[in-house]
Order: sequence, then structure tokens, then C-alpha cells
Amino acid sequence: MAIEKNTEFKMRRASDDRHFSERIETLKKQIDEGIATLFRGRKPESLYTPMFYLLEAGGKRIRPILLILSCSAVGGRPKDCLDAALAIELLHTFTLVHDDIMDHDDMRRGRPTVHKQWDEPAAILAGDGLVTLAYQTLLKINHPEIIQVQKTFTDGLLALCEGQALDKEFETRDDVLISEYEKMIEKKTGRLIEVSCEIGAILGNGTKEERENLKKFAALLGKAFQIQDDVLDVRSTEKITGKPMGSDLMEKKKTYLTIHFMGTGSALDKARFLRLWHKDSLQRRDVLKIKALFEEAGTFEAAQCTVEKFIAKALKHLETLPSSESREDLKRMAFKIRDRIC
Amino acid sequence: MAIEKNTEFKMRRASDDRHFSERIETLKKQIDEGIATLFRGRKPESLYTPMFYLLEAGGKRIRPILLILSCSAVGGRPKDCLDAALAIELLHTFTLVHDDIMDHDDMRRGRPTVHKQWDEPAAILAGDGLVTLAYQTLLKINHPEIIQVQKTFTDGLLALCEGQALDKEFETRDDVLISEYEKMIEKKTGRLIEVSCEIGAILGNGTKEERENLKKFAALLGKAFQIQDDVLDVRSTEKITGKPMGSDLMEKKKTYLTIHFMGTGSALDKARFLRLWHKDSLQRRDVLKIKALFEEAGTFEAAQCTVEKFIAKALKHLETLPSSESREDLKRMAFKIRDRIC
Repeated sequence: MAIEKNTEFKMRRASDDRHFSERIETLKKQIDEGIATLFRGRKPESLYTPMFYLLEAGGKRIRPILLILSCSAVGGRPKDCLDAALAIELLHTFTLVHDDIMDHDDMRRGRPTVHKQWDEPAAILAGDGLVTLAYQTLLKINHPEIIQVQKTFTDGLLALCEGQALDKEFETRDDVLISEYEKMIEKKTGRLIEVSCEIGAILGNGTKEERENLKKFAALLGKAFQIQDDVLDVRSTEKITGKPMGSDLMEKKKTYLTIHFMGTGSALDKARFLRLWHKDSLQRRDVLKIKALFEEAGTFEAAQCTVEKFIAKALKHLETLPSSESREDLKRMAFKIRDRIC
Repeated sequence: MAIEKNTEFKMRRASDDRHFSERIETLKKQIDEGIATLFRGRKPESLYTPMFYLLEAGGKRIRPILLILSCSAVGGRPKDCLDAALAIELLHTFTLVHDDIMDHDDMRRGRPTVHKQWDEPAAILAGDGLVTLAYQTLLKINHPEIIQVQKTFTDGLLALCEGQALDKEFETRDDVLISEYEKMIEKKTGRLIEVSCEIGAILGNGTKEERENLKKFAALLGKAFQIQDDVLDVRSTEKITGKPMGSDLMEKKKTYLTIHFMGTGSALDKARFLRLWHKDSLQRRDVLKIKALFEEAGTFEAAQCTVEKFIAKALKHLETLPSSESREDLKRMAFKIRDRIC
């Protein structure tokens, strides 16, 4: 009897997961079509082709999906927030295009980055065009709280610039604390995810409390997402991440891993790490040595534990929302983000 | 009696001009103070100092002044459009910061450009921050047509990106026509001036006709402004323009001068020009030789004539507005722009 129940439970879960994947795929398709429509017939090509290039290369569309699910979770209709969802994806793509120049990254989504495919001027301009097209798309929304939506979007974008500035500052500092790092990623990564869920909740006419809880859910999810990203940079492969293994390390970026390791590693291991870290240019073998040091020191486990902590906190905020399929899908999205390396 | 009248007329005109200068100075002071207030207390400095750097270096504040005068010319109050005026100046500064990277310009307003003073990542981010702060400032406006204001602002910015893309395209083309060039500068330079006057007219609650006429005035003024800028690049000094003489030529930029010269110069002069133009890097003496060729071919006179034509057309649109001090000041601003090289 117990075995039968367990089997039934597993089958239902598999079916739920399949339906979840189908729903996400449907949303993704709507977003992709919406983006393609935005670009149709636009000229000159020397502006719009580099703008479209990275969008066309795929991407998980996490932010627009979270926006639409947040809207639905408070009782709104996906079609009322599609433009906002597209705007968020354009804004996200803008940050990628400019960040790749700033961080000297050559690969993104398995392709050369925009400034590598064309040149830096084209990539700077493509980014500028993307942020503008994001605003143009956002301005199509017809909702009594459109000004609030725009303020949320704009304040979020400014926080994101601040986060990026702090990230660059940290590259030249050796005394960055985990608390400072968390504040930085709250802005650089968390805020856009937060903005996505908040705008979804506004456009879905959520109550003040619902908006607040979705915001908090998203902020915590964003932090978990970034730390998971830090882990993936060292632990995953180019095939999965679309960029070379250890590119953060090569760029001397402070990540959760480097900061945690420097705070907890043994004196000998830290000295070994710093010898590698201070090399002018890190090779793949150096990255592998650093990875081994992190493994030894339990750095990955610590990161994983922090990710779990943030996800658990995030889910508590979700629980306050009325029960719905969209709320469950938001929960599944959180697990998807958590499980990227599992 | 005739002499007396003439003297009286001249004295009145001198007094009018002095009062005009005082009014413009007052507006400029309000704009400068408004900008300084926007930046007060903002952190991190690694973002906001490079953002403020070029704004603080001066600048004529032409666009915000035109915005405020347009608002007044249709009966609005300057204080109701100050935030929009600040937003326009921030947006303009954003375009300068990014254009300077794209065009490899080292000097601006007599100072090293942002990417020279810091580095390219800092300048890219400063630009991104400026466009965001521009939107944040625009969103402070309380007016029933705020959405229209934002659409005008955003559509203008996208046109500007298109214009910049065309400008870069033209660098590698040898067959650019004057008509194509005019369409490009309509977007790259004209549109932001057009947007300034249009937003001023909207916020001043101008009639549809007034808005349309101010828009057309501004578009023509913008084209005159750009052609005058092309002339200044070759004919003026670094002390006046804040950048090296001939920097457009050194960057192989198509300007009104180069296109007009190639369309009208003698075969021999054109061959002389092309020998200089196709050098890998132009020196000051090459610029002087090109300048002499332009003088010879009457290129500067042709440019001046076109500027006059645009200004005259622009003024006709102004004449349709009700008579007012602000309308006269707009006219004086047009003359100021025309007379930059006289």
C-alpha cells in the first residue's frame, strides 16, 4: 500500500513537472515571438542586427518568465504584462552586452560576444539601443500604475549600475567582506529579478502585501542565483555556461567563492591561492588548481548552503500568496535556479 | 532726427541683448544648480564621479534652455519644466560620453574625455548611469501628458542611436549623398533639439499647432547646428571647441564639408583631397591642407549658406507663435547658434 502510494506520488510529480516544463516553454515561445516582432523591419541594420544578435542566441528568459508568473500569481493575466516582460528581457540583454565589454568577456551563450562579433563601438551602441527599446516597449503598457512601473524599472536600473560600479571597485580591493559582496550582488543581480517580480505584481493588481512578498522572494532568489553563478563559473563547463570555465577568476572578479575562501582557508592554502591569483594571466591549469583548493576548503559546500538558505527564505515569502498554479510554478522556478549545478 | 533714431535703436538693441544674456545666464544657473542637486550625496563615487565629470566641466546647456524657452513661449512656467530640462541635459551628456568612446575622441570641453580620465568600462557605465538618471529625473514630472513626454523622449533617443549607427556606417562609405547626410544629422543631432522644444511645448500646454511649429523650428535649428559644428571642426581652434582642430577629419567622419567638396570640387582638387584623406593617420598639417582646399572650392561658403537657409526656415515657424519675450529669446538662440563662427 505504502509502495503504491509512493509510486502514485512519484508519477503525479513527474506529470506535474512535465506540465510545468510545457507551461514554461509556452511562455518562452511567447516571449521569443514578442521579441522577434519588436525587431521586425527596423533599420538601419548596423544598429538593430547587433541589438538582436544576443537575444536571438537564446537565453533562459528567467526574468520575463518570473514577471509573468508573478502577475498571474496575484490574479493578473499574462497578456497584460507581456510588454513589461519583453522590456525586462531587453534591459537584461543591454546589461549583458555592456558588461561583456567592461569585463573583457569573449564568449556568451556559446557565441562570440557582441563586441567580438562586431567591435566595441557597435556593442556600446547596441546596448544603448536595447535600453531605449526597453523603455519604448514599457511605454506601450496601458495600466493606471504605469508611472509606478516605470519608476520601479528605472530605480532598479540605477541600482544595477551602482552594483556594477561596486563590482569593478572590488576587483582592485583585497579586503571585500561577504556582507559587502552580498550588498553588491543585491544590486547587480538581485535587483533586476526583484524588479521583474514587482512589476508583474503591480500589473496583476496585487495587494500591497503581495507585492512586498513577491519583491522579497525575488531579492532572495536573485542572491541565490548570483552565488550559484559564481559556483558554475568554476565548477561547470563552457558547454553549459556558454563561457570559458573560470572566466570570473581570470578577470580577478571577487566572487562568493574567493571571498569565502580567503575568510576560512588555512594560511598555507591561502598563500597557494594568492600565488595563483596574483599571476598576470591565469591559465586553465591555474583555474583547476584553485578549484581543487576550493574543494579542499569546503568552499563549494558553503556556497551551496548559502544558496539553500536564501531559497528557503525566498519560498517562505511565496507561501504568503494565495495557492495557485502560478505560485507553484514560481516555486519550481526557484528550484530550477537552485539546481543548476546539482 | 534719423541719426538720433538710429542711435536710440542701437542702444535699445544693445540693452535687449544684455537683458537676453542675463536671462540666459539665470536659466543656465538654475540648470547647473539643478544638476548639482541631483548628484548630491549619491554613492558609490566610482559611478557618480565619472557621471558628473563632464556635466561639471561646463557646456552651453543649449537643449535645456531651448526646452524652458519653448515652454514659456506657449505660456508655461519655467519651474514646471525644470526637471525635463535637467533630463535633457543628462541625456545629451550620456550621448557625448558614449560617442567619445566610439569616436576615439580624447578631449571634450577642454578636458580629457571620460574614458581617457578613467577608462572605457568606467565611461560605458557612466553613460549608462546618465541615461538612467535622465529617466529618473523625467519621472518626477507631474503633468497629465507625462506619458507623451516620455514617449517623445524615448523615440528621440532611439532615433539618435539610429543616427549614430548611420554616422558610423558612413565612415566606411565613399558615396554618401548630401541628402543621406542630412537625414543622418536630423536623427543624430536634430532630434534631441527637436525633443527639447517639443517637450517644452507639451509641458507648457501649447496647442497642437504650437507644438508642431516648435518641433519644426527645432529640427531645422538642429540641422543648422550640426553643419555649423562641421565647419567649426576645421575652422575653429581647440580653445573655442574644446577639442583638437580637424578631429572629424582625423576620424574619417563624413561631414557636410567632405560630402559637399567631393560633389563640387575640381577633379584635381578632389585627387589632392583623397590623397590626404586616405592616409592612415592625418596630421595637423594635413588638416590645414584640406582646409585650404575647402576654402578654395567655396565649401565653407556653401555650408554657411545652408546654415542660413535652415535658420531662416526655422524662424518662419517661430513667427507663428504669439509674440512674447520667450519667442524673441528663441530667435536670439537661433542667431547665437548661427553665429558661432562669425
